[in-house]
Amino acid sequence: MRGNLPASGARLWDSLMEFARIGATPKGGCNRQTLTDLDSEGRHLLRRQAEAVGVTLAVDRVGNMILTRPGRDPMRKAVAIGSHLDTQPTGGKFDGVLGVLAGLEILRALHEAGIETEAPVVLVNWTNEEGARFSPPMMGSGAAMGIFPEAEVLAKTDSAGAVFGQELARIGWAGDRDPHALQDLGAYFELHIEQGPVLEREGLDVGIVTHALAQHWFDVHVTGADAHGGSGMAGRKDALMAAAETATMIERCALAAGARATIGRMTLHPDSRNVVPGRVWFSLDTRHDHEDQLAALAAAMRGEAAAISARRGVQIAIEDFWISPATPFDPALVGHLRDAARARGIPHKEMPTAIGHDAVYVARRLPAVMLFCPCHGGLSHNEAESITPQWAEAGLVVLADAVLAAAGVARD
Amino acid sequence: MRGNLPASGARLWDSLMEFARIGATPKGGCNRQTLTDLDSEGRHLLRRQAEAVGVTLAVDRVGNMILTRPGRDPMRKAVAIGSHLDTQPTGGKFDGVLGVLAGLEILRALHEAGIETEAPVVLVNWTNEEGARFSPPMMGSGAAMGIFPEAEVLAKTDSAGAVFGQELARIGWAGDRDPHALQDLGAYFELHIEQGPVLEREGLDVGIVTHALAQHWFDVHVTGADAHGGSGMAGRKDALMAAAETATMIERCALAAGARATIGRMTLHPDSRNVVPGRVWFSLDTRHDHEDQLAALAAAMRGEAAAISARRGVQIAIEDFWISPATPFDPALVGHLRDAARARGIPHKEMPTAIGHDAVYVARRLPAVMLFCPCHGGLSHNEAESITPQWAEAGLVVLADAVLAAAGVARD
Repeated sequence: MRGNLPASGARLWDSLMEFARIGATPKGGCNRQTLTDLDSEGRHLLRRQAEAVGVTLAVDRVGNMILTRPGRDPMRKAVAIGSHLDTQPTGGKFDGVLGVLAGLEILRALHEAGIETEAPVVLVNWTNEEGARFSPPMMGSGAAMGIFPEAEVLAKTDSAGAVFGQELARIGWAGDRDPHALQDLGAYFELHIEQGPVLEREGLDVGIVTHALAQHWFDVHVTGADAHGGSGMAGRKDALMAAAETATMIERCALAAGARATIGRMTLHPDSRNVVPGRVWFSLDTRHDHEDQLAALAAAMRGEAAAISARRGVQIAIEDFWISPATPFDPALVGHLRDAARARGIPHKEMPTAIGHDAVYVARRLPAVMLFCPCHGGLSHNEAESITPQWAEAGLVVLADAVLAAAGVARD
Repeated sequence: MRGNLPASGARLWDSLMEFARIGATPKGGCNRQTLTDLDSEGRHLLRRQAEAVGVTLAVDRVGNMILTRPGRDPMRKAVAIGSHLDTQPTGGKFDGVLGVLAGLEILRALHEAGIETEAPVVLVNWTNEEGARFSPPMMGSGAAMGIFPEAEVLAKTDSAGAVFGQELARIGWAGDRDPHALQDLGAYFELHIEQGPVLEREGLDVGIVTHALAQHWFDVHVTGADAHGGSGMAGRKDALMAAAETATMIERCALAAGARATIGRMTLHPDSRNVVPGRVWFSLDTRHDHEDQLAALAAAMRGEAAAISARRGVQIAIEDFWISPATPFDPALVGHLRDAARARGIPHKEMPTAIGHDAVYVARRLPAVMLFCPCHGGLSHNEAESITPQWAEAGLVVLADAVLAAAGVARD
């Protein structure tokens, strides 16, 4: 620790409320979807406020905003703070925005206190983290870190047929910087709301995120045979009953493996009250701390599904849909956050993130870490999403101290 | 038995193929939905062919066609044969049509053989058996038997907003006879395809239907709480996993009770791959030979659902949607069919119908019975629905003999 930065929780809160007006919804949430006029308005506000404290803006070809405050040592790589200003259609005021505005507040505090850091300090606003308008999510960080080809990102279309690259140009935020230049950052910090109930339930103000869970998503196709609801049960090949048994098997296997399993979507065919479904499809999302145990879960589920399939005379195909490896965060950066929370006496715990974030893509290329702020009831992607000013301030000061520790404070 | 009527299976088959051209689909099925111009065309063809053999047409206020061949004894109530000419949008050539045209063939044979029956013989073409365009199904027989108020039937609208009564008048088939007059029939026979695989599987040509199963349909609402797919499983109130466990419980209870249970529709909310569903709705169709055992099944399911609910912290509401009592067919008419099949040496069995038919409503008011013709693979409500000419003829001759036995042949 090189000393505490006088970052202001009150000013951060005011900023959050100011940005929340851009796309404010009647129910108190925010609808500021990526590459809309409102997104542009939010970006301009961020640019003006950052430039007011001596920060320089660059924009890359996928629209990521890179706001740089120079450091003293020309050899040091930049220490970055980032998150996203875009929201879900019925999003809240804090998801993403908290991380960007905490970074802005740190830049303001550095400016006001006249502190020179050894490394540059950079604030990044990633394009399209949410994936609500253009899928998949985390396109800006994915393109920057080489997960997605830039051309593929620029060619994506929304449900109305609008093209990502054209919309980016239309709102005036298509820059000329190479997105891959962001892989040259020295470290990356991201403060985000937890989007889960753990911290609030345990009375903690900060979660230090040590790693991202491995994820394995599947499409499950169950194929039996249609039959009239009046037919006897003995001869049936009921795809729904087979799917139900498969779902309970999946739940049991996931609990036994210490994994998380979610069946979020399901369709029945032909979808009629008095017809035994001949086909059922459902999605399956599984997550685990350890990739090998997640792979073992997949194998166990497939083995049990084969037994159900044989017994019922239906086909059950558990097909891979998407796989994301377990991603550890940088131990040194985790250490900076831990030190900061301890020094401040802020109640905290170390925990994984089970949810995708820009930091997870960044961590595949350079040292990165996240910290979580509690949110009421674990609610997010919801207009009722809420946090307290005290939680926001706790996240801010731990982030600020850790960023300073990583960037180094110049001693004159 | 008063002797065998020379009804012709070949002529019945020709009639089936002739009617199949009215609304023929490219895949070989039939789309002749109720109260369309094609329905009217089929009705006119039936009228012309029946009138050609000396039969008199009456039409009631819900469009039921009543074609009457007089009997010799003015005191005897009419013996009726009936079914329906309307089809599903992607229906087959036999569902309903077989029963009407078998009746037509019997009228033709009576005419050609110059046979006078003691009781009048009546052929009924019921309006809107299918319920595909106007819901519910079996409206013509339901209105005639006092199950549905006539005014309610006439006011029904289709999905395009067209009104039943107006469409009936538009196609020229709104009659002035009181539908309730059909309650004065002395007996009612209906030949129909089985719509199930039993007869074909067992190598039988005729099914003699002894009763209609009791049916109890439900709406099941499972209410938990939405959660992110990344959240731990311990704190979840996963409506889908609760619904899956409920479905397997329902299957187990139904098998134990000797009932039939079908979950044909299911919806998840919010229906997103990585969100634990907070709400699930599904339909449930249960059927049993005995009403009391069906009621016991409902009680058992509700008891087990309460235990699942308590253990998982979710609400499970199993709400009544529709109840149809078990309906016995008339033992004397069953006896006529049994005698006919035995005398002809036609392989047959006695069985229930688990599917609603006009005969089931008729049986609530007067002696009625059904017989089944096998259909390939149990397939119906499908353009690929098919039967063999031999099966059609077996049904025809058993029906003809039983009708003659019930109506009595005049001895001069």
